[in-house]
Amino acid sequence: MLPNIEKVELQAMLDWLAGYGADEQGGVTRLLYDHAWCDAQHALAVKMQEKGLAAEFDQSGNLFGTLKADSGSSVTNGEHNLPIVTGSHIDSVVHGGKYDGAYGVAAGILALEYLKQQFGVPRRTLQVVSLCEEEGSRFPFAYWGSRSITGAACLDDVRELRDAAGARFEDAMTQAGFGPDSNYRSAKRHIGAFIELHIEQGQVLERLGHSIGIVSAIVGQKRFSVTVGGEANHAGTTPMIWRKDALAGAADMISAVRRIALQAGHPLVATVGQVIPDPGVGNVVAGRAVFSLDIRHIQQESMEQCWKQMLEAFTTIAEEHELELEWEEHLSVAPTSMDARIIHDIQEICLQEQLSSYLMASGAGHDSQIFQSACPTAMLFVPSCSGISHNPLEFTSEEDLMRGFRVLVRLLYKYGYGS
Amino acid sequence: MLPNIEKVELQAMLDWLAGYGADEQGGVTRLLYDHAWCDAQHALAVKMQEKGLAAEFDQSGNLFGTLKADSGSSVTNGEHNLPIVTGSHIDSVVHGGKYDGAYGVAAGILALEYLKQQFGVPRRTLQVVSLCEEEGSRFPFAYWGSRSITGAACLDDVRELRDAAGARFEDAMTQAGFGPDSNYRSAKRHIGAFIELHIEQGQVLERLGHSIGIVSAIVGQKRFSVTVGGEANHAGTTPMIWRKDALAGAADMISAVRRIALQAGHPLVATVGQVIPDPGVGNVVAGRAVFSLDIRHIQQESMEQCWKQMLEAFTTIAEEHELELEWEEHLSVAPTSMDARIIHDIQEICLQEQLSSYLMASGAGHDSQIFQSACPTAMLFVPSCSGISHNPLEFTSEEDLMRGFRVLVRLLYKYGYGS
Repeated sequence: MLPNIEKVELQAMLDWLAGYGADEQGGVTRLLYDHAWCDAQHALAVKMQEKGLAAEFDQSGNLFGTLKADSGSSVTNGEHNLPIVTGSHIDSVVHGGKYDGAYGVAAGILALEYLKQQFGVPRRTLQVVSLCEEEGSRFPFAYWGSRSITGAACLDDVRELRDAAGARFEDAMTQAGFGPDSNYRSAKRHIGAFIELHIEQGQVLERLGHSIGIVSAIVGQKRFSVTVGGEANHAGTTPMIWRKDALAGAADMISAVRRIALQAGHPLVATVGQVIPDPGVGNVVAGRAVFSLDIRHIQQESMEQCWKQMLEAFTTIAEEHELELEWEEHLSVAPTSMDARIIHDIQEICLQEQLSSYLMASGAGHDSQIFQSACPTAMLFVPSCSGISHNPLEFTSEEDLMRGFRVLVRLLYKYGYGS
Repeated sequence: MLPNIEKVELQAMLDWLAGYGADEQGGVTRLLYDHAWCDAQHALAVKMQEKGLAAEFDQSGNLFGTLKADSGSSVTNGEHNLPIVTGSHIDSVVHGGKYDGAYGVAAGILALEYLKQQFGVPRRTLQVVSLCEEEGSRFPFAYWGSRSITGAACLDDVRELRDAAGARFEDAMTQAGFGPDSNYRSAKRHIGAFIELHIEQGQVLERLGHSIGIVSAIVGQKRFSVTVGGEANHAGTTPMIWRKDALAGAADMISAVRRIALQAGHPLVATVGQVIPDPGVGNVVAGRAVFSLDIRHIQQESMEQCWKQMLEAFTTIAEEHELELEWEEHLSVAPTSMDARIIHDIQEICLQEQLSSYLMASGAGHDSQIFQSACPTAMLFVPSCSGISHNPLEFTSEEDLMRGFRVLVRLLYKYGYGS
């Protein structure tokens, strides 16, 4: 049995890591293969080595720190030989916070250091990974790190993508020292299990007063662009009854989205975050309005049902207003369930640690949803202060960070050192 | 009594004038004091002289063409000495059409030429004015031409205004050859009556099958900026019931604007042409949304009443959604009535000419609303094809242009040559 886990330098490591790509607002901007990202990833390799882990990059730029099992161990042969991997990503959104992704990486490194110091060589290989990319904030491609490890994506899928400045994906990768011509190993590899520790990026744990969120499933997403076509007209000279006001129609539709989502009930969420009227001038009746629609649920069927209801409502509204209606689905991600056995183990650890845990859906996407198709995968959340994320104000207290850390250490101990 | 007025070169003059500031889309961009505007205004001065009128600029850049009364005429003394003025403006919006404003200027020049040729020197001085500015499309100040003539504005009101490129109003005016240091007379002057011939810029005449619109009143306007404050949140991790979605609230308000305006009935119009959610990203619940509101009616009380109802609705919606509500009124123009005697004279002329006329409100603002406070003022509309205006597709048939011209000529004949 583990002794009480004392405070480790987790907060200090997050502060240190946030120095790479630090912006004036106290936030972090580390985009795939940019300078801040390269410096951070190489500094983490050094840090892993200092902590007694073998550090190794792959061709995508993922960084693994390994605590290798005893070669004579009974679990080093066959399927059971595959390493247990923890970690997360170090890339950020533009002006992001210092916890998103970074927390899982730092906690993983310190967990392996702690376990090595306390218990020496494990019976099963443990690894921490600093994934190269999750956010999709430089190139229009998210989860590059985990997708290249699991084989869900390869260089051919991203090679010709361009960032906002016009840089080619492959060129950016090569300039950062990675890619097929580098001396690193290919990214694709088999792993035994993936465990991701992450901030919640929502308010559920904080509001309900829980310390640990155990992710049951990561929501699926459907994203649409809805276009309402009317007739641009002079705001003074066009009587109300003759108008085909695209924005008035869009407004009715946006109201309908909220009404239908509320009726569907938790955990369904549906959001219109953007609407663009055209010409978008105060004294012109809008001839066109385009709005975004984001629907999420842990069940595919519920998402489909909700979209169907919304589309029916949109169609009725368009007819009432004599407007045209077009829509385009530009993202469709299926929900994914986390591994039931690992969830059970985490629940047990939380009981032992006397931590209030809460089984919940993740409303945000994470690398875990990619790993889930390749190996047993689980995800742990700690509270996010006011749910703020992707923002310099992102914050989780050191106490909460340490609670998640303790659960991670006990879980890795169980899988790495247990019989 | 006037003979039948035959076709004059009205269409040709409009086509010629549209060559100044012509853009590739077949539209016109002539902004106050810019090159195209200067060239057009000076070309019009030459044109006026060719047509037998005395051309004269004032310090604002307004151009008057005068057909002077016989100095021995009985109406040249006292109050009755003041000239009857027709005309409109030659500035345009960016990528505007070739009829808005220009029609009234061209028709005025040709009307005075026609009257001079047919009847010689009038008993009362007739003038045509090519007003320098009405649209407010370069500097944030509309009706500069008519306001400087009536004394409703002077250089001090506009001197320090800047255009989008940062140019100072007074500098632009001086560079164009106008201003107090020029050799031109001061803009402020007394006039006996103002008669403006203009395209409708709406669909009322076309839809109802009338040839001439006689403006009874120009609507008042109230323009607001309404700000809805909520809480920006992650679209995936924030349950529906915890959201303070500023855009969902704004959508309900925009729907309410339309509902209340329809209930109020014609001629009230209310328009939301712009809404800007913040951050305006598809996967973020909007923390803020700002929308425009434009309310117009020919009665001040009806506008006020309508705004009051809307504000009550906004307040209720904000409370339901737990949102903050702020609003700012940034334009308030009172409705203005046109002169009853001139309206009567126009109606009579339309009967004589067997033209179907329609007494209507102008939903758009015009220089006539400025002149109305200084002298008896009237306004005539001709149909706009499909109501399209402020657009290269703006069109009125030559037949309709000529109908308006004939009414103008008969009206000017009545006031200039009648006993």
